[in-house]
Amino acid sequence: MATSNDYSFSLTLPAWAINENKNLKPTYETIEDRMREVLRFARRNTEEQTGGPFAAGVFELDTGRPVVIGVNRVIPHLCSSAHAEIVALSLAQKQLQTFDLGAPNVPAHQLVVNWRPCAMCYGATIWSGITSLVIAGAGCKVEDITGFDEGPLRDNWQEELEQRGISVTVGVCHEEALAGLRYFANSGAPVYNARQGPS
Amino acid sequence: MATSNDYSFSLTLPAWAINENKNLKPTYETIEDRMREVLRFARRNTEEQTGGPFAAGVFELDTGRPVVIGVNRVIPHLCSSAHAEIVALSLAQKQLQTFDLGAPNVPAHQLVVNWRPCAMCYGATIWSGITSLVIAGAGCKVEDITGFDEGPLRDNWQEELEQRGISVTVGVCHEEALAGLRYFANSGAPVYNARQGPS
Repeated sequence: MATSNDYSFSLTLPAWAINENKNLKPTYETIEDRMREVLRFARRNTEEQTGGPFAAGVFELDTGRPVVIGVNRVIPHLCSSAHAEIVALSLAQKQLQTFDLGAPNVPAHQLVVNWRPCAMCYGATIWSGITSLVIAGAGCKVEDITGFDEGPLRDNWQEELEQRGISVTVGVCHEEALAGLRYFANSGAPVYNARQGPS
Repeated sequence: MATSNDYSFSLTLPAWAINENKNLKPTYETIEDRMREVLRFARRNTEEQTGGPFAAGVFELDTGRPVVIGVNRVIPHLCSSAHAEIVALSLAQKQLQTFDLGAPNVPAHQLVVNWRPCAMCYGATIWSGITSLVIAGAGCKVEDITGFDEGPLRDNWQEELEQRGISVTVGVCHEEALAGLRYFANSGAPVYNARQGPS
């Protein structure tokens, strides 16, 4: 028999990430500083076995104030949508009490991720209101290294973002990001692609 | 000062939808039956002012047993990712205790939505493990009628799903779905596109 609890779900950061968020610096001046912090969270998420090898940080664009850095929580929460970007954007929107991180009453926000968002998180980026996306890389290396199916994007994915007022910066700390993905692949951690049953 | 509560977020169905879920029929035999129920939820969500004009149902593919019907909750939860599909898939995965609705130990599942998923929910569909997507329509009418920016998809979006083992059925209860979208547009309810502040 279904209960009301069946019609609600919660996503949370792991204890270590809550602690690390509380101890973030007041500001991260350069996009490399921001990316390095995101990469640290992504690597730690693999080490702690608290989710997939991805992290996403929401920063105030101009000041570099970190709003929140989220991590992938798919397997711990048994929720295929609990990617780092969805978690980080949702937490930032909750903290700032707006579904639009580009609303008139808030400063401009930037999303920093350790690789190009998957098809789902690409769409989530558009809905979120951020005006800047910074990624360590794009393309198939993430799939080649990890085995994840990131889903299809339009070939002009970057132009589509820019047409919507989202600037895109690709290649920040590229090699360090690849090293983190290889660390995950070599860890033996599970790859949470869908339809793992018989077809 | 941030508290631990800042690092967790919850999405829930509105009270009327919890009640309606508890009173669903044991099975819905045809895809038209399933879509009509989804359309009823979508319309009700506008009427009750509990979110956008979209609903999504997860059904067992063969038996038609409804697992859950979710609705859009963006504005009530101030969360741009709280689309009907994300809500329904996450609730279904919680109830069935799996991040993969196509896992070996669960029956095949179908997602029924009152229009083609937006760019985000298209990706979420791929990650979810469902093996069948049923929609009332595809293309720009939803944007023309409502003003939402659904985001870019590849021109071969349907083929990309089918290559991943997800069958696609388009056009079920098409006119009724359009009527529901027009009802929303005429209601004066807010359109929650992003970046509503100055660029």
